Amino acid sequence: MSETIRCKPIGTVHSGFTEIASTPVQGAFAPQATGEIEILPELAGGLKDLESFTHIIVLYHFDRSSGYELVSQPMLQDTAHGIFSMRHFKRPNAIGFSILKLETVEGNTLKVSGVDILDGTPVIDIKPYIPMFDSIPQASNGWVKAPHMQDIKNETSRRASGSELD
Amino acid sequence: MSETIRCKPIGTVHSGFTEIASTPVQGAFAPQATGEIEILPELAGGLKDLESFTHIIVLYHFDRSSGYELVSQPMLQDTAHGIFSMRHFKRPNAIGFSILKLETVEGNTLKVSGVDILDGTPVIDIKPYIPMFDSIPQASNGWVKAPHMQDIKNETSRRASGSELD
Repeated sequence: MSETIRCKPIGTVHSGFTEIASTPVQGAFAPQATGEIEILPELAGGLKDLESFTHIIVLYHFDRSSGYELVSQPMLQDTAHGIFSMRHFKRPNAIGFSILKLETVEGNTLKVSGVDILDGTPVIDIKPYIPMFDSIPQASNGWVKAPHMQDIKNETSRRASGSELD
Repeated sequence: MSETIRCKPIGTVHSGFTEIASTPVQGAFAPQATGEIEILPELAGGLKDLESFTHIIVLYHFDRSSGYELVSQPMLQDTAHGIFSMRHFKRPNAIGFSILKLETVEGNTLKVSGVDILDGTPVIDIKPYIPMFDSIPQASNGWVKAPHMQDIKNETSRRASGSELD
């Protein structure tokens, strides 16, 4: 239970986002934000047939985050929530999760869109997004209500279009 | 790029599945398979408001897996695929991903269903499943075709109902 789990990066994200404050909050709202995932050449064989999927699950290391807060106020919210009920990066294990649209696979390079990940981020895993397993439209959005979603959408559009946060 | 990413378990899965060969292949097809996730007491504060969600994303360590195969033949399939286009556990980083139905949160214990995880599995992270971000019904199922899906469904039902693989 207390053992440490060790992961080695399998690749790196290349995106236009170099600052947390200007990175899209949610890729779902930033379809125009494109980028690449470069997989280590020695692991490229593992990409076989990935291009048959339109979307991929990407796990990555929030490498510019340190420490965590069990309860905090998410951006654009006035109520504090537990870290396990948020996607925020200040987590006990700094692992991020994004669903990206897969445009093409060329050699060891994936071209992706809907990118909400900082440039240079180490990638831990790629899995296919399989809607028969993963799409649950009837699931509840929990504390994430429509007005908050609209705020995220607006903020994401602003960031993805390249304008700076003040 | 070559740095090691270290994770510490945040909790443990308790399920009725002690053998890989009798664990449901996909929780989506095993709604009757219930279990619990026990979070470390010192992290229980991070669960605040999680119960407002009906579904959760669970990341965990495939702790009984070792090594990986870049290309292999998934169960019930006659064609080999790349590991990044499969959910198989023999991955470069042995991290599993499941979407579970969240039934209740009591103290540091989550009651969940749709469980496809071995008993005693170390949990790395819990994130809310937010359909506005995560449900993409129009995504392609890639190489996972309807007959294969039916095979997974049948096999999962058989395992979840407690019968043994021969």
